[in-house]
Amino acid sequence: MTNFCSDNTAGASPAILEALNRASAGAVMPYGADPLTEALEARFQALFETDCRVFPVATGTAANVLGLAVMTPPYGAIYCHESAHINLDECGAPELYTGGAKLVLLGGEHGKISVEGLEQAISGAGNVHSVQPAAVSLTQGTEAGTVYRPDEVAAIAEVARAGGLGVHMDGARFANAVVSLGVSPAEITWKVGVDALAFGATKNGALAAEAVVLFKPALAETLGYRRKRGGHLFSKMRFLSAQLEAYLADDLWLENARHANAMARRLAEGLAAVPGVEILHPVEINEIFPRFPKAMAEGLKAEGFLFYTWGGGEDRVEARLVTAFNTKAEDVEAMIATAGRLAGQEVRKTA
Amino acid sequence: MTNFCSDNTAGASPAILEALNRASAGAVMPYGADPLTEALEARFQALFETDCRVFPVATGTAANVLGLAVMTPPYGAIYCHESAHINLDECGAPELYTGGAKLVLLGGEHGKISVEGLEQAISGAGNVHSVQPAAVSLTQGTEAGTVYRPDEVAAIAEVARAGGLGVHMDGARFANAVVSLGVSPAEITWKVGVDALAFGATKNGALAAEAVVLFKPALAETLGYRRKRGGHLFSKMRFLSAQLEAYLADDLWLENARHANAMARRLAEGLAAVPGVEILHPVEINEIFPRFPKAMAEGLKAEGFLFYTWGGGEDRVEARLVTAFNTKAEDVEAMIATAGRLAGQEVRKTA
Amino acid sequence: MTNFCSDNTAGASPAILEALNRASAGAVMPYGADPLTEALEARFQALFETDCRVFPVATGTAANVLGLAVMTPPYGAIYCHESAHINLDECGAPELYTGGAKLVLLGGEHGKISVEGLEQAISGAGNVHSVQPAAVSLTQGTEAGTVYRPDEVAAIAEVARAGGLGVHMDGARFANAVVSLGVSPAEITWKVGVDALAFGATKNGALAAEAVVLFKPALAETLGYRRKRGGHLFSKMRFLSAQLEAYLADDLWLENARHANAMARRLAEGLAAVPGVEILHPVEINEIFPRFPKAMAEGLKAEGFLFYTWGGGEDRVEARLVTAFNTKAEDVEAMIATAGRLAGQEVRKTA
Amino acid sequence: MTNFCSDNTAGASPAILEALNRASAGAVMPYGADPLTEALEARFQALFETDCRVFPVATGTAANVLGLAVMTPPYGAIYCHESAHINLDECGAPELYTGGAKLVLLGGEHGKISVEGLEQAISGAGNVHSVQPAAVSLTQGTEAGTVYRPDEVAAIAEVARAGGLGVHMDGARFANAVVSLGVSPAEITWKVGVDALAFGATKNGALAAEAVVLFKPALAETLGYRRKRGGHLFSKMRFLSAQLEAYLADDLWLENARHANAMARRLAEGLAAVPGVEILHPVEINEIFPRFPKAMAEGLKAEGFLFYTWGGGEDRVEARLVTAFNTKAEDVEAMIATAGRLAGQEVRKTA
Repeated sequence: MTNFCSDNTAGASPAILEALNRASAGAVMPYGADPLTEALEARFQALFETDCRVFPVATGTAANVLGLAVMTPPYGAIYCHESAHINLDECGAPELYTGGAKLVLLGGEHGKISVEGLEQAISGAGNVHSVQPAAVSLTQGTEAGTVYRPDEVAAIAEVARAGGLGVHMDGARFANAVVSLGVSPAEITWKVGVDALAFGATKNGALAAEAVVLFKPALAETLGYRRKRGGHLFSKMRFLSAQLEAYLADDLWLENARHANAMARRLAEGLAAVPGVEILHPVEINEIFPRFPKAMAEGLKAEGFLFYTWGGGEDRVEARLVTAFNTKAEDVEAMIATAGRLAGQEVRKTA
Repeated sequence: MTNFCSDNTAGASPAILEALNRASAGAVMPYGADPLTEALEARFQALFETDCRVFPVATGTAANVLGLAVMTPPYGAIYCHESAHINLDECGAPELYTGGAKLVLLGGEHGKISVEGLEQAISGAGNVHSVQPAAVSLTQGTEAGTVYRPDEVAAIAEVARAGGLGVHMDGARFANAVVSLGVSPAEITWKVGVDALAFGATKNGALAAEAVVLFKPALAETLGYRRKRGGHLFSKMRFLSAQLEAYLADDLWLENARHANAMARRLAEGLAAVPGVEILHPVEINEIFPRFPKAMAEGLKAEGFLFYTWGGGEDRVEARLVTAFNTKAEDVEAMIATAGRLAGQEVRKTA
Repeated sequence: MTNFCSDNTAGASPAILEALNRASAGAVMPYGADPLTEALEARFQALFETDCRVFPVATGTAANVLGLAVMTPPYGAIYCHESAHINLDECGAPELYTGGAKLVLLGGEHGKISVEGLEQAISGAGNVHSVQPAAVSLTQGTEAGTVYRPDEVAAIAEVARAGGLGVHMDGARFANAVVSLGVSPAEITWKVGVDALAFGATKNGALAAEAVVLFKPALAETLGYRRKRGGHLFSKMRFLSAQLEAYLADDLWLENARHANAMARRLAEGLAAVPGVEILHPVEINEIFPRFPKAMAEGLKAEGFLFYTWGGGEDRVEARLVTAFNTKAEDVEAMIATAGRLAGQEVRKTA
Repeated sequence: MTNFCSDNTAGASPAILEALNRASAGAVMPYGADPLTEALEARFQALFETDCRVFPVATGTAANVLGLAVMTPPYGAIYCHESAHINLDECGAPELYTGGAKLVLLGGEHGKISVEGLEQAISGAGNVHSVQPAAVSLTQGTEAGTVYRPDEVAAIAEVARAGGLGVHMDGARFANAVVSLGVSPAEITWKVGVDALAFGATKNGALAAEAVVLFKPALAETLGYRRKRGGHLFSKMRFLSAQLEAYLADDLWLENARHANAMARRLAEGLAAVPGVEILHPVEINEIFPRFPKAMAEGLKAEGFLFYTWGGGEDRVEARLVTAFNTKAEDVEAMIATAGRLAGQEVRKTA
């Protein structure tokens, strides 16, 4: 069985597991007053080359919504792509943590909102009948497997700034985006106007560790209370911090992401060459969205390749394949080969 | 340095760390559709000898408030002891997760509410001006280091049932209470009327793992949505489930708690024999509340024994000492001896 | 000055003011335990020919969101037209009262959602990552000045029922819809599947009075608490009930709506005959949406006709004109004549 | 029947009803953009001799909780007397509007909190586990029928200021307190440190009208959104403003309160002279709390005097009597006489 359903189906990087084992030794103060956690902020500040504030949590949803909550009042509007995780996949967590803000949904090709789309959507400021423009949330890399380039983020952030919006980045696959873009973490965040980043590690080799990274100190003032109140302040915080420390150490996070991206690129190239397969979005991180002939998709699944499919009409299905930090090259090649073989059978059958 | 500040200052049981390492192997489906998580419910059902539903989360606050949220409407009242963790130490998490319910605080000796106190407090049912009685929450073991006996829980639950209240148990130190009472988990929960239990593991050897255990299937209907919405559904759920599985395996949870309780008992006995030291509450789990002469408390801290102190008047301080699954007997003896020595000095000084 | 900005710009029907004066006499028990309020439910039950429950409030927003709150959990989804008042004009009130539910927006011609649109939108039931389908809200008459016919409501309600949704009706202009359709209140509500109605009176002659009408007794169980908690339980309730009683007495509500609708029809007919004016939506209640040449719109305003305009491109503007229970026929004729005159000037200018 | 249950059992002052009738004439813009509302703020600024901001609403609960919401974050603590309306009688409205803040309850004689009580209660600032001190709420006049003197408010406000708390005043019976104290509105509010006042009119002659009066402009920034979102922005706002304008005109509000207070004083004096009757709190506004022999209380009710009673032990009951702006002197005398007669019978019976 080869599982391309999600990068969440992978286990954890050995180095991160080892870090947990090391971190367990000795008694340390709880709730973040331990040496590992105390060192972590400096570690992130070095990484991001700025005086950011860092709040470890265990899930991407928590990281996203805590970052949103510090910039969005209960009567606020959060602008995001209609495919955003915060809209479709968090069961209303942003609404809970903001006290009932509204997500205003934007379209946009390949999972990305556009400057124009945002400009047109922002409305109602000062109008007491309307929710108030508060934040824009970008997913980096997107739910379509694409990335925002620094100039794209900057242009959106400029519109946001003009409209009084905070800029939030859902970085569940931030590492994949960074290596894809070949930029520094700073160049794709605060230098182009990002105020709050949900820095993901779980999908890229951690067990369960993310960090809310705030590039404006004022945003940090209430985050601690909100995190505790959400039940996201770990008593044995060292076990979150140890994961994040090991994730960053020796550029493990970049190495893991580079591998996952490479596997995705190879899988996309290989599948694109298979007759009958189309790739629906540019493959810029570790997600591939192929459209398969229905029979081929069924055949692949029957031969042990797991992935999600939906819709697609009568004889096609759309699929999502996700590679991970530990995806094996031979599994990628096997899937390409199998697809090719199934395509041949298809040709023969229809011939 | 010997840390008696909290059982949260300890690391994790080796068996639990090993379980994490084992759990990491292979690809499994995320969000609880993995074999470890799927087996976990049966494991808990066997443990509790009933058809309970189980929802792993990472923090005690999350476990508490999710259990409360499924039995308390936004306009509900939750009755609890004024010292309860849900009142003093969760920064309003119950209010967040219930949508704004009110905690109604009861007094009671040694951290325990009484049947009479609850009876007198329950009011307002059907009165549209008043929040509506919804739940009672018991902390087992309590914040004063004591335990509710099965008949005490049963009597409170009877009042609760008569008043239409759900019965919630904050079991952050459930293991310590179970071994203290010498009862089965069933005997101190559903058999005496408990509807929802926050089953703690973190303080007793896990890294970060708790379980919401629901003894009424109807309560489980909305919990999954509330957990996700709170950001508490782990994608790599196997890593929560593995902790809980290892925690229960070979009665590790009971063994850990037995050790912590024994250390606390010995520490209490030893300190009680030291002139000038009083023990303020019965020592029934792994917490001891001594009142020290101020000089002794300062002396103990100066010699490397860490613990929390507060109030106590001019020449005394009240302290909390907490032992853990890995507290060393020699550290306990060292503290007793040091207190004795400091008491002697005190005597000599004042003589 | 003639004000067509909104039916909210009108004062109150004299009969309703007189009822307030009458209601003020004598001492009565507060919070609805007065004879007027006690009689009101029977009055509504007779009107709707069923055993409905009635909760008077002062604003349409309150009526809407209380009705939604009793059928929508915090993790729920409410399906509605993108132009719905609950989406655009209530500053997030549905989110506040439901505890953070999500409005899922549907398109649809002339302010109406379609059966197909709803069917396609309903999704995520049982999926823990997704908000849960909870309610559909119809605006009757719509924000485009149109009405849903009984068979249209029935078809939508059937889809709703199949998907487990409650059916909510925003009836801020319910009277206008009822007289437009020529149906009984029952025929356009519970008989075609409506569960909760925000029965509006304010726009149609009351000072500030609406009623949440619940056609399923179970929905009423929590509404009283939610109303009080929202600050919408009047102490001197008699003054809300008196308005509603007078509103229904002698069919004042229908008479008022009939007049407003007739004025709108005449205004629409008259304007439609003016060269350069288009009417954008069928005029089925008391709202008209003309597209004017920009110069004509400006001319009309300059001559004292007040109305809202927006967008429309370079040389056109879209406008909304709303008539009320006390709109004068001569004001309607004056506007038509003025538009005609301005059109003539326009023709002459361009000739 | 003579109704002393509440000042809410009275109707409205004729002058206020007349103002509604006058206000109904003509078309005016909705939602507060009408001349009456626009003039209202200046009227209040003159009354309070400062640059306050004014937001009319219809209920005391709304006025209270909107004022609290602008000074209390979701993780905030509001300190108040345990008998406060916001605690006992609003079904959790403060929790709803603040997003889940916690009311911390203080004792105190005769319905009043003390400086010392507040000082001892304030805790947890900066501690992430604890809700954060945010506001103190004073009820003026109190639920025990007493008043805070200016120096008492000032002393409490000083503690509040030192602790970073906003100062909120529930002025449901503000008029009664002002005439009782013989002070100007300024002297008992912002001049002694009050930040937000719920200025009540309903209990003292209006139909349903209160005003949130904010003495710090910054607090006003978000109130408009919160009011709308709560469903408390009236479309035909003129009808709220007209009530408030008439309430203030010709000192009607003071005259009404003076009468109610005088009736209460006379009733208290008369009852105090009746053998067996005790008055439990100083009678400083329009509420009297007598303890009656049980037989006397029953006798009074049997003869048509309505009032609330509770508790009081075996042969006594505690009662609350409330007078209103239109209480008749002869009804007061009748009750005194009846109590006297019943006392005589009692004496005879027991003799």
